[in-house]
Amino acid sequence: MIQIIPVEGLKLIKQGDRLGLEIVKALRARGFSLLDGDVVVVSHVVVAKSEGRVFRLSMINPSPQAVGLAQLTGKDPAHVDLILRESRRIVRVRGEVIISETRHGIICANSGVDLSNVGEGLAAALPEDPDASARRIRSEIEEASGVRVGVIVCDSHGRPFRRGAVNVAIGCSGLEPIWDRRGEPDLYGRILRSKQICVADELASAAELVMGQAAEGVPAAVIRGYKFRPGETGASQIIRPRSESLF
Amino acid sequence: MIQIIPVEGLKLIKQGDRLGLEIVKALRARGFSLLDGDVVVVSHVVVAKSEGRVFRLSMINPSPQAVGLAQLTGKDPAHVDLILRESRRIVRVRGEVIISETRHGIICANSGVDLSNVGEGLAAALPEDPDASARRIRSEIEEASGVRVGVIVCDSHGRPFRRGAVNVAIGCSGLEPIWDRRGEPDLYGRILRSKQICVADELASAAELVMGQAAEGVPAAVIRGYKFRPGETGASQIIRPRSESLF
Repeated sequence: MIQIIPVEGLKLIKQGDRLGLEIVKALRARGFSLLDGDVVVVSHVVVAKSEGRVFRLSMINPSPQAVGLAQLTGKDPAHVDLILRESRRIVRVRGEVIISETRHGIICANSGVDLSNVGEGLAAALPEDPDASARRIRSEIEEASGVRVGVIVCDSHGRPFRRGAVNVAIGCSGLEPIWDRRGEPDLYGRILRSKQICVADELASAAELVMGQAAEGVPAAVIRGYKFRPGETGASQIIRPRSESLF
Repeated sequence: MIQIIPVEGLKLIKQGDRLGLEIVKALRARGFSLLDGDVVVVSHVVVAKSEGRVFRLSMINPSPQAVGLAQLTGKDPAHVDLILRESRRIVRVRGEVIISETRHGIICANSGVDLSNVGEGLAAALPEDPDASARRIRSEIEEASGVRVGVIVCDSHGRPFRRGAVNVAIGCSGLEPIWDRRGEPDLYGRILRSKQICVADELASAAELVMGQAAEGVPAAVIRGYKFRPGETGASQIIRPRSESLF
């Protein structure tokens, strides 16, 4: 059996806070101790806050390109300026939707620059290096708790062919994000030829079931009982290079 | 807290078996009773078996088109014939990969026709109407257990921009697949403008963490503690129509 436990009562995170330590403290305050092999899933917004990646829109002087794209999409020009700064290229613009490829290579809406759950007039950008964020949070958690865990930094992304967003892993540390089962036998002994499972994305999606993204304010969750394969490949390896893309 | 419980000890399912009843029996044999509000996630392969959607490849006389595409991809011509029969259009062919749009409108590899976990020389096609399958399984479960549940029929799909497959909902009954949070306030009172979450896909992904797709043979899971919104929209509504697609 697997359990998904919300991290409740986390303090409002500010720049410089040691997020991993604060997660351990919030869990302890409710009588909960982490165990070896737990996976801690953390929302990118709270990571952005701890890393000083939250920007005040009124402090931004939007570029002419941002002003133009803001007129086209009906967005705040300062928001668009941030989206452009965080992007490597714009993939599509339709209506008020901007799909871009971030500097990390992630294709998502608004370069992941989020206006929700950060406070009025503020925007949270994705971490500069989400795998490094996951490594840092993991070492803070392991230092404070004395146990070995996996850490996933998550964001909620739309999909080209499916409606509704799902939570995915943008950073990870301590666990292999993709479980390559090719070469294993199936139920009847037939060798699997093409089975690679993105367990990091599945763990991120599972965590969102308790994380509630609006007024509840549960920015992290613990997944207990999933036997992950330890590793340090990082979630950047989940991103499919354009050369591999079939679309 | 949410719990994900594997359905272990399910008998090998044959055409005509009442799958919902068999799931309740397997759970009872291990002393487990379903509760109101549980979500039961079932692999499409076991649904195919119960519905007689398993085909013997040696009985198929492949069309000339299937023979041609089989030569191009190195696949079994009978497998390709089934893929073509199950498809509305071929989206991409590269190497040994055939991406097609199924008759249901799902874009995935091989029209979802699976050679794994069905037995040597056999192939499992997706259910004719996965939402109807979910409704039938739900009514069997509810009749056998006396409680109200949600049911999801799942399959594991690749993604255009991300490596590795994840489990998604291809059928669902009893729960709304998409949670539309637009209009709700965030943590700071800002109204969410674009938040729609595909909870059915997140539940399917969470279930796969215990379902193991190879030798373990755990074709179903119970998710307990997730407060879903009841409804009968069906997973067909998750499929993004081409007119909405940004890609």
